[in-house]
Amino acid sequence: MSTNPDHRTSDKEWPEWRRKIHDIIFEADTPAGKWFDIILLILIVVSILVVMMETVDGVDAKYHKEIVTIEWALTIFFTIEYILRILAVKKPMKYVTSFYGIVDLLAVIPTYLSVIIVGSQGFIVIRALRLLRVFRILKLVRFSNASNTIRNAMIASRYKIIVFMIFVVTLITLIGSIMYIIESPTNEGFNSIPKSIYWAIVTLTTVGFGDITPQTGVGQFLASIIMILGYGIIAVPTGIVTSEFAKEQKRELQAHENMTKACINCGAENHQRGAKYCFKCGHELEE
Amino acid sequence: MSTNPDHRTSDKEWPEWRRKIHDIIFEADTPAGKWFDIILLILIVVSILVVMMETVDGVDAKYHKEIVTIEWALTIFFTIEYILRILAVKKPMKYVTSFYGIVDLLAVIPTYLSVIIVGSQGFIVIRALRLLRVFRILKLVRFSNASNTIRNAMIASRYKIIVFMIFVVTLITLIGSIMYIIESPTNEGFNSIPKSIYWAIVTLTTVGFGDITPQTGVGQFLASIIMILGYGIIAVPTGIVTSEFAKEQKRELQAHENMTKACINCGAENHQRGAKYCFKCGHELEE
Amino acid sequence: MSTNPDHRTSDKEWPEWRRKIHDIIFEADTPAGKWFDIILLILIVVSILVVMMETVDGVDAKYHKEIVTIEWALTIFFTIEYILRILAVKKPMKYVTSFYGIVDLLAVIPTYLSVIIVGSQGFIVIRALRLLRVFRILKLVRFSNASNTIRNAMIASRYKIIVFMIFVVTLITLIGSIMYIIESPTNEGFNSIPKSIYWAIVTLTTVGFGDITPQTGVGQFLASIIMILGYGIIAVPTGIVTSEFAKEQKRELQAHENMTKACINCGAENHQRGAKYCFKCGHELEE
Amino acid sequence: MSTNPDHRTSDKEWPEWRRKIHDIIFEADTPAGKWFDIILLILIVVSILVVMMETVDGVDAKYHKEIVTIEWALTIFFTIEYILRILAVKKPMKYVTSFYGIVDLLAVIPTYLSVIIVGSQGFIVIRALRLLRVFRILKLVRFSNASNTIRNAMIASRYKIIVFMIFVVTLITLIGSIMYIIESPTNEGFNSIPKSIYWAIVTLTTVGFGDITPQTGVGQFLASIIMILGYGIIAVPTGIVTSEFAKEQKRELQAHENMTKACINCGAENHQRGAKYCFKCGHELEE
Repeated sequence: MSTNPDHRTSDKEWPEWRRKIHDIIFEADTPAGKWFDIILLILIVVSILVVMMETVDGVDAKYHKEIVTIEWALTIFFTIEYILRILAVKKPMKYVTSFYGIVDLLAVIPTYLSVIIVGSQGFIVIRALRLLRVFRILKLVRFSNASNTIRNAMIASRYKIIVFMIFVVTLITLIGSIMYIIESPTNEGFNSIPKSIYWAIVTLTTVGFGDITPQTGVGQFLASIIMILGYGIIAVPTGIVTSEFAKEQKRELQAHENMTKACINCGAENHQRGAKYCFKCGHELEE
Repeated sequence: MSTNPDHRTSDKEWPEWRRKIHDIIFEADTPAGKWFDIILLILIVVSILVVMMETVDGVDAKYHKEIVTIEWALTIFFTIEYILRILAVKKPMKYVTSFYGIVDLLAVIPTYLSVIIVGSQGFIVIRALRLLRVFRILKLVRFSNASNTIRNAMIASRYKIIVFMIFVVTLITLIGSIMYIIESPTNEGFNSIPKSIYWAIVTLTTVGFGDITPQTGVGQFLASIIMILGYGIIAVPTGIVTSEFAKEQKRELQAHENMTKACINCGAENHQRGAKYCFKCGHELEE
Repeated sequence: MSTNPDHRTSDKEWPEWRRKIHDIIFEADTPAGKWFDIILLILIVVSILVVMMETVDGVDAKYHKEIVTIEWALTIFFTIEYILRILAVKKPMKYVTSFYGIVDLLAVIPTYLSVIIVGSQGFIVIRALRLLRVFRILKLVRFSNASNTIRNAMIASRYKIIVFMIFVVTLITLIGSIMYIIESPTNEGFNSIPKSIYWAIVTLTTVGFGDITPQTGVGQFLASIIMILGYGIIAVPTGIVTSEFAKEQKRELQAHENMTKACINCGAENHQRGAKYCFKCGHELEE
Repeated sequence: MSTNPDHRTSDKEWPEWRRKIHDIIFEADTPAGKWFDIILLILIVVSILVVMMETVDGVDAKYHKEIVTIEWALTIFFTIEYILRILAVKKPMKYVTSFYGIVDLLAVIPTYLSVIIVGSQGFIVIRALRLLRVFRILKLVRFSNASNTIRNAMIASRYKIIVFMIFVVTLITLIGSIMYIIESPTNEGFNSIPKSIYWAIVTLTTVGFGDITPQTGVGQFLASIIMILGYGIIAVPTGIVTSEFAKEQKRELQAHENMTKACINCGAENHQRGAKYCFKCGHELEE
């Protein structure tokens, strides 16, 4: 991603110091860049923990001053970082309007706003979105492969998952509506269809809060069927994703095998890795 | 599905305007038909949302008049649609007695009935069944493939799933009965076997509402075994469905590989990969 | 399973009428035997439903006389069936001491006992075990294959499942003990280690009744870890069983393929099903 | 693991009696060692059961004296065992600082401490960690293979699992924060972000205690999405682990197939099935 040296020196609009900031802030594979990312991530985690602690009554009463100090220090740091990011790229608007650009801005605004508007402080939790930056540090080969495999398996199964989701949503709407007819006359918990659908989701996904439960015999019978259905149909998304993972894995293996050679004598392929002689005719394999 | 032109002009009982209605209402692959399906689906979703909102006390109190208006407008639209569907097909009785035909009729009846019989309004939720029409729009190749794969995997695993379900039902009946003997003397929640079986289903499927819970030590011990069982045996339906998905996927891949060439002599298809001679007539296959 | 005719006529200790009873009661593949099994199963289900209904207060108050009548009628029928089963086999002791023999006896005893000892009636629920006879009717080829596949996959994964269960039990004991130390001082729900372990099982298996919940911050933090663990490690038994199902399926496919032939000309194997000519050399395949 | 005889006799620092203790206490494959392990495991289970019972009010009130006696007897036995373990190994410090060494020490300390410090008794539950010794008895070939397969599948999927966990943690933090903003004004259960995150974990993992539940319509709508997400994404870890299990199983099968012959020329093993020439030196393989 770093531009080549010749290009750099001839680039007048893009002075050396901006390139250096870029290497540190945006790159994850240089030592400086890696360290910056790790420190940034720790500060993000700290800032989230501080925001969390602020909402806990006992902690806030005791350490209110410290929490506010840390919050302002981190907000100022993140603001400087945001400005540097704008300076470090050639096309700042592209960064500002990108997903991370918007998140980075939204992460600092609430603290400043809290001076003017009381209560806007709460929105600082949007900072949690910055946690997604962790995936940048994961750019190590091993994690990168792992997340690629997961992403590919997800992408490959998207149509099947959508069909499954449509089926589940239809099912939930139907069940919720029927449960409303059955339970609403005697049960306060099912007093509207949206609430009955909420209960159907709670039940089908096997979460089962228990804040709303069927009271009539017919309702409990229908609930039993929904629970067994929910218990059973979880096999469908699992089956879809698993078979895609297996396929993905096979593809990786084949990509690996394809790099090996064919025998020059008999043309046999699919030699074991590290094989020096053809397993079919015994001829020496060329490197 | 559209009849060929020659046939159309010679068909006196099937005038052009009825054929056109058919193309719009029943076909999903013509532009007009696709648009009709999308608009219809939106109206179905709207009508279901309106019915839902009607059951929410606050919303109904405020917008009662608007809700009733929209409901009648949609019911009249759906009625016209139903009549057009009957006109558009050659054998109307076949449509009227089909699954979608019955659902389409049941979707409009409750609104009309509500004028005569008070309370019949509630059954309008049957309209949710019309949501299943979404699968018609999914007739796009990609979604169609996806739902075929799911359906095939389900069909292939039906006998195994039935055997598993019989095992689960027997297990639940046994556990519910035993829990009734253990808990009923001291626990109001287990005051009948059907209720104990309901609890067993809630527990085995890992839903766990918590409205009924074992209170005795022996009951909690048995409950623990049921929970671990339920946690473990979910692996069975998942295993069944997943292995069928994997098989289904393999079949698709092979079908793909096999389609590459057909025999020039006998036209046989589905040759093995790498085959040089037709497996049916022995004629040499061309590359 | 039926002895050959010659043998039958020469068998003096085994008269024709006992052989006929045997064919009807014990065999499932003769028309008479199949009908007997289906009727028996319906009667078992009816008797279980009657026992269930007896425990529901409202129903029992209304139909007490009818319930008692049906119960005695069925008990007498099952008693006659039990006696016929003893008469129908050559070695009655083997049947009497077998699993089904004991279950058949236990299914009739409680009704008779209820005359002498009040309260023994409750044990009639043991009759639910007779439901397992349903698996005899499932002896149809398709269901038989399905249940064989499930059984084989279960047997093949037994050692892995045992290792997993030992791990889970150890984990639950540890977690339950630690939660007892953390929560017991302030939380009535965790007032003993066995109860804390019960809670750990409820949580790890994702059942989550909610009758016992952690109240302290530390307890909720530990509970979070347990929940994520339980959410994750369910992948292990599923993975074990699924991979065995896949293996089982492959074995079935191979058993099928092994029945096919090899080319007499070039010796190539693995021809497609129904192939008439060798795909490698084009030589005609022998039937 | 046992040193060879010649070595033993010449070893003056390692007298015969210490070697014998070593064989009994540390080895699991000699008859004496196996018996020692089984007895030790039973005593560990007994000691844990005793500690559990001590926390149950009714049991402790009745059998307090017996419980204390058994506890002291077992603690003294475990202490002697600990001393013997130190004596039995050549490098005691290595054992003392090992995982099992620390666990063995921690398992006896609380009982002694309870004489001096009141309340330290509770920490005796750490003894549950000794249950892990059960895996030593599992060193039988079949269980060993099973646990190796599980461990290998776990190790192979570790990067994918870590990526998935980071995604889940980020998701939970975000959801918990948003739910805090939505629910905290009207709902006591969501009175801090950490508590909201706890609720998000309870919901996403489908545990669903029901001690904290959303009350607002928006909160219930968001909760529905979380539940469906949690219901769906459980497919990811399952898919990861299952595909690794399948791979692991394949590897085992191949290792089996490959072991059949070794090259007579260079001794290379792991030839492919059907290979006629050694892949390493090209020498013809004998049948």
